[in-house]
Amino acid sequence: MMVEEKSSMTWSCPRPREGAAYITIAHGGGGLMTQRLIQQIFLQAYGNDALAAMNDAAVLSLEGSDRVAVSTDSFVVRPLEFPGGDIGVLAVHGTVNDLAMMGATPKYLTAGFILEEGLELRVLERIVKSMADAAREAGVQIVAGDTKVVERGHGDGVFINTTGIGVYHDMAAPGAASVEEGDCILLSGDIGRHGLAVMAVRENLTDSLGFASDTCNLAPVVADMRAAGVELHWMRDLTRGGLSSAVNELAAAVGCGMRLREIAIPVHPEVQGLCELLGLDPLYVANEGRFILLTPAAHVDTALTVLEKHRADEYAAPCLIGQIEMQQPSRVILESSIGVDRILDMMSGEQLPRIC
Amino acid sequence: MMVEEKSSMTWSCPRPREGAAYITIAHGGGGLMTQRLIQQIFLQAYGNDALAAMNDAAVLSLEGSDRVAVSTDSFVVRPLEFPGGDIGVLAVHGTVNDLAMMGATPKYLTAGFILEEGLELRVLERIVKSMADAAREAGVQIVAGDTKVVERGHGDGVFINTTGIGVYHDMAAPGAASVEEGDCILLSGDIGRHGLAVMAVRENLTDSLGFASDTCNLAPVVADMRAAGVELHWMRDLTRGGLSSAVNELAAAVGCGMRLREIAIPVHPEVQGLCELLGLDPLYVANEGRFILLTPAAHVDTALTVLEKHRADEYAAPCLIGQIEMQQPSRVILESSIGVDRILDMMSGEQLPRIC
Repeated sequence: MMVEEKSSMTWSCPRPREGAAYITIAHGGGGLMTQRLIQQIFLQAYGNDALAAMNDAAVLSLEGSDRVAVSTDSFVVRPLEFPGGDIGVLAVHGTVNDLAMMGATPKYLTAGFILEEGLELRVLERIVKSMADAAREAGVQIVAGDTKVVERGHGDGVFINTTGIGVYHDMAAPGAASVEEGDCILLSGDIGRHGLAVMAVRENLTDSLGFASDTCNLAPVVADMRAAGVELHWMRDLTRGGLSSAVNELAAAVGCGMRLREIAIPVHPEVQGLCELLGLDPLYVANEGRFILLTPAAHVDTALTVLEKHRADEYAAPCLIGQIEMQQPSRVILESSIGVDRILDMMSGEQLPRIC
Repeated sequence: MMVEEKSSMTWSCPRPREGAAYITIAHGGGGLMTQRLIQQIFLQAYGNDALAAMNDAAVLSLEGSDRVAVSTDSFVVRPLEFPGGDIGVLAVHGTVNDLAMMGATPKYLTAGFILEEGLELRVLERIVKSMADAAREAGVQIVAGDTKVVERGHGDGVFINTTGIGVYHDMAAPGAASVEEGDCILLSGDIGRHGLAVMAVRENLTDSLGFASDTCNLAPVVADMRAAGVELHWMRDLTRGGLSSAVNELAAAVGCGMRLREIAIPVHPEVQGLCELLGLDPLYVANEGRFILLTPAAHVDTALTVLEKHRADEYAAPCLIGQIEMQQPSRVILESSIGVDRILDMMSGEQLPRIC
C-alpha cells in the first residue's frame, strides 16, 4: 500500500500559476469556448459514438432488457486529489457501486461538471483523464455530459455529478424484503481508509502514509458472487457515515435488530492510529470500496471465498461481523471488544465534511 | 403575461433571517440530519415507490422497450427565483426538453442537490415544491436523488443536477443524418424571454415587467407533432447561447449551410426594448421553452398548425425562419431586416453568465 505521488498536494483548489490556462466564465456560455472545452478535454478523454454525436440526449441500447437501475450522486470532495484517487475516480466508483449493490450491471454514466472560474485547465484534464480511466476499467461508457461555470468564490474547483444506468437481466434484486431471520452480515474488508486518506491530506499527514483510499469498483466482486451462486439478500456500500450508517439503514429498512462483534471488524493499524490522533471513530468514517452483504448461513463460506479473491491486501480481510435478529427492535447492538454491549447509533451530525 | 410575485426577489442567495432554519454542514454528513432532510423535504415533495425504497439505486420498468434516451444537465442559475419560474422548474424542463428533442418520451428524472451551508430551508422547500409540481405536470417521476452540502462561500445557495431517462417506442430519432436539401427551419415562438427575465431581476427592472421566462415542457408539442404525422428531421431547444448557437450547431452537425430571415424571427417588444437598453442581441439570449425543428416543405403547414395550438400568447407566434442549403458551406447566413446578408456566428464569449 504505497501512497501515490499525488499525496503531497494541498487540499485547496490549486491557486493561479504564471502562464497557466484557466477556466473562465466564457467556458460556460454555450458558445465557441464551451464547444472547444468539450471537444478538447471531455470528448478527447471519454470519446464514444453516443457522446460524439453531440445531441441533446444519448440513445442507448439495453440489450433486450426493459428494466434498468438508476442512481445519481454528486461529488464535492476536498481536496480534489488524495492518496489513492481523485474526485474523478470517486465519481465513477461511487455511482457504479450503487448500481452493483442493487444487483444491476453498470453500463452507462452521465457526467455533469460545475467548474469554478479560475480552475487550472491541467487540473481539470487530470481529473477528466482519471475519470475516463476508471470508467474504462469498470466497463461503463460516459454517454452524456454537461458543463457549467460559476464565478470565483461561488464554487470550489470542480463538483461532479454522475448518474449511472445499469441493466437488469433477471429479477433478483437484493432488497429489504429478502432479508430473513439469521441472515449473516459480511463485511468485504477493513473500514475507514478513504475518510482517513482525505483527512491526512487536510492535516498535512501524508508524508509517510502507509495506506490510501479504498476507492474501487465493486461490480466485479458482486458479479463473481452471483456466478458462485451466493444468495444476496441485501447489499450496501459504505460511504458517508461509514459502517454505522449502513447497518442502521439496514435495521430501519427491514425493521429488525442485529448484533455486531466489534472485534471482528478489521481496521488498518495506521487508520486506527490516525483515528486516535484525530479523535475519530472508524465505525463512522467514510469508505469508497467496502460493502456489507446479507446472506444465509449456508452461503457464508462461498461468499467469503469470493471476497477473499478480491481482497486488496493483508489488512483488508473480509469477515463475518454479525447476524440479523428479526424479532428484536430495529437497532444495532455492538458487542465491544471488552465484552460490553452498546447501541451503535447513526451519526447525528457531521464527522468529516466533504469526504466524497 | 403577468409577472409573478416572485419577481421582486433579490438575485443573491437570501441572507440569514432571525429565527429561520438553515442548511448546516451536518445536513450533508450522511447521518441522521441527512435522513431527516431527505424525509421531510425531498420525499415529502417527490414521494413515489422507487424513491421511498431509499435504496442505492431505483429499479425502473421501460414498458417493453430496450432503448432509452439519457440526458444530463446541471443548473446554476442566479437568481434562484425569477419571473416565470425558479431553478427547480428549470431543472425539470431543461432535461425533459432535451429528451423530447431526441424524440423520446420523458419518464424518469434523478435529482442531485449541492446545497450551500446557510441556505434557508424555506427557500429549499419552495424550490423542491416547484420542481415536484413541474415533474408532475410533465408526467415524469423523480426516482433517485442525492444531497451534498458545501461550506458557506464554496457554493451558491443551490445547484441542481437532473438526469432524465426517456423511453423509445420506435426508431424515429431525429438527427443530423435525417436532414435533407430544402428542409424548412421552423421556430416554435419568440426568442429571448428567459434570459431577459433573469437579467431583469439582476438589474432591478422587474417592477413593471410585461413578460416572464418562457420556461416550459416541450414534450407535449413534440408528441402532438408526431401524432399529426409531421416528419421531424432535427430538433433542438434553444438554451444557453440562444438561437445562434442552435443553428450553428445544426450547420456543424449536418455540414450544411442555411439562410435565415431575421425579420421572420419574433421578439417580444419588451424583450427587444430591454435588449437595446442592456446592449444584448436577442439572437444570442437564452430561452428555456423554444425550439427549432427541421421538416420537409410539405409538412410545414401541419407543423405550424400544431405549434399554433401550443402558442403561449400573441407575441409567441411560431414561424418559418429559413431553409437548409446542403451544397453551401456550413455556416448560417442571416438576411437582415434591411436586406443585407451577414454571417450569424456562434457566440465566442459569454453574454449572460449563469442563465440556467
